[in-house]
Amino acid sequence: MKSALSLALFSAALVLPAIAADPLPSWNEGATKQAILGFVEKVTSEGADFVPPAERIAVFDNDGTLWAEQPLYFQAFYLFDRVKALAPQHPEWASEEPFASVLKGDYKSALAGGEHGLLAMAAATHAGLTSEEFSASVNEWLATAKHPFTGKAYTDMVYQPMLELLAHLRANGFKTFIVSGGGIDFMRPWIGRVYGIPPEQVVGSSLKAAYEVREGKPVIVKRPELDFIDDKAGKPVGIHQHIGRRPIFAAGNSDGDFEMLEWTTSGEGPRLGILIHHTDAEREFAYDRESHVGKLARGLDEAPQRGWSLIDMKSDWKTIFRP
Amino acid sequence: MKSALSLALFSAALVLPAIAADPLPSWNEGATKQAILGFVEKVTSEGADFVPPAERIAVFDNDGTLWAEQPLYFQAFYLFDRVKALAPQHPEWASEEPFASVLKGDYKSALAGGEHGLLAMAAATHAGLTSEEFSASVNEWLATAKHPFTGKAYTDMVYQPMLELLAHLRANGFKTFIVSGGGIDFMRPWIGRVYGIPPEQVVGSSLKAAYEVREGKPVIVKRPELDFIDDKAGKPVGIHQHIGRRPIFAAGNSDGDFEMLEWTTSGEGPRLGILIHHTDAEREFAYDRESHVGKLARGLDEAPQRGWSLIDMKSDWKTIFRP
Repeated sequence: MKSALSLALFSAALVLPAIAADPLPSWNEGATKQAILGFVEKVTSEGADFVPPAERIAVFDNDGTLWAEQPLYFQAFYLFDRVKALAPQHPEWASEEPFASVLKGDYKSALAGGEHGLLAMAAATHAGLTSEEFSASVNEWLATAKHPFTGKAYTDMVYQPMLELLAHLRANGFKTFIVSGGGIDFMRPWIGRVYGIPPEQVVGSSLKAAYEVREGKPVIVKRPELDFIDDKAGKPVGIHQHIGRRPIFAAGNSDGDFEMLEWTTSGEGPRLGILIHHTDAEREFAYDRESHVGKLARGLDEAPQRGWSLIDMKSDWKTIFRP
Repeated sequence: MKSALSLALFSAALVLPAIAADPLPSWNEGATKQAILGFVEKVTSEGADFVPPAERIAVFDNDGTLWAEQPLYFQAFYLFDRVKALAPQHPEWASEEPFASVLKGDYKSALAGGEHGLLAMAAATHAGLTSEEFSASVNEWLATAKHPFTGKAYTDMVYQPMLELLAHLRANGFKTFIVSGGGIDFMRPWIGRVYGIPPEQVVGSSLKAAYEVREGKPVIVKRPELDFIDDKAGKPVGIHQHIGRRPIFAAGNSDGDFEMLEWTTSGEGPRLGILIHHTDAEREFAYDRESHVGKLARGLDEAPQRGWSLIDMKSDWKTIFRP
């Protein structure tokens, strides 16, 4: 008895400092938390697995990984609101899809065209805006718009455990990037204050842009033409074009992130890929294989054999949204 | 007398520490050096002109600004060498321009097609290469190739005064980026060791790329299709797409940099644009209005009224190339 008690006290003493300084307090103890902490410990410690700080590149998907994405991508709500605001200047939209469905409030039909329909809306509502006008429009919208189910501001629907993970990686010399299918210019106005990520560390989808001098004042203007879609196999390409080296850590939540995790974790040396599985219908949303947004099927099937950590939101996270 | 002497000694005492720690030792004293030092001092000191570190974005052209560009862009020499190396596999090049001229050693005719001809050579020689193969090819070439006039390695033809300027800006919290008309993937393999700039801080011209899994191994492969030309009005666009905010400092040397300087210096608050004027035929090259490479005409005409600093290489720089 006595020696068992001593051992228990001894173990507690060893473990206590780690608990006191837990960098991921919103994560329950378990395999995924240990995988993350162990990986960071490994690449920052002297030894065969040490990675120089310059090569500690970590990439994060945004929708469904850093903030919520149900019942629709939040950027889709922004687009719908832009369509409604601009409708008086576009009488033709009353009979033209996807605009007509948006104006009738039929979001399901509005999204029937998928990516193509969203792009049409982005092109129609953003073209001609300067970068500064667009940025102001996003910030104004975020300041007042509320999520239709939770009533929260959209930027309050970011995941507290992921904010802790971003901070922990940066505290250990990682450079953190967002690599999202969402619009790069839609994210830049707010990711600094919300995630602590500067505008130059974002890869996203984009429209083409042009440089013009308008009445003596130089501006960058959005053009109604697709530049790049940063999704699926586009993610490693976007990473290559923007970052120019292969990350050693990648976090995602859907099959749109599959290639990004594959590219990241197939490099040499220590690598970590994590996939967030949305399992918590009570505190957030529960969806995977059949979801029209953030579908996760191949990732679920292949995560074990590829050594990716599956995060079970319901059991792994103490808190979901930031307070 | 006595008070004048005291004043002189007093002034010397005030000035000495600054001289002792001169961050730009290869720059002669003069208006351009003072403009640079004064700008850095201003934006880093408390007061109305203070700029927070996160917004201290400095952009540098590469060809003719950080390293030499005569008699041809160094990347053109690389392309010619690739064309020659691959010619045995392409018998059709013997009668097809611009390849035929390259193979005959007639570089002038090879370049008659301008950008279009260079792109054709890049597409024909790079397509299908993985990002790692391309990077290795650039590094191998740089390790052995010599400049036809100076006999130096190309990476020894970087400007010592500009290396000091890069270091001085970084020591003062600036993030330094390259924004070049040259190929982004051509620069990334060596700019870290030569300029101290990481691969994610480069904007350049690019071919499209694709993600593939080849025999189980994921790769990024170059495609024979233009993605982006980062020159002239393309530079502010490239800055917007990659960096997402307007720089406060820009350095260039040709009219290809005009819009980048215009965009940079027309923002609010303190801004500095500098243009390097190649005036030293003895130590480097002398060229401007009539040059087929690095033409500088509009910049020379408008620099004074726009408040841009013109660097006279011959009189402003003590040393040209890094030792």
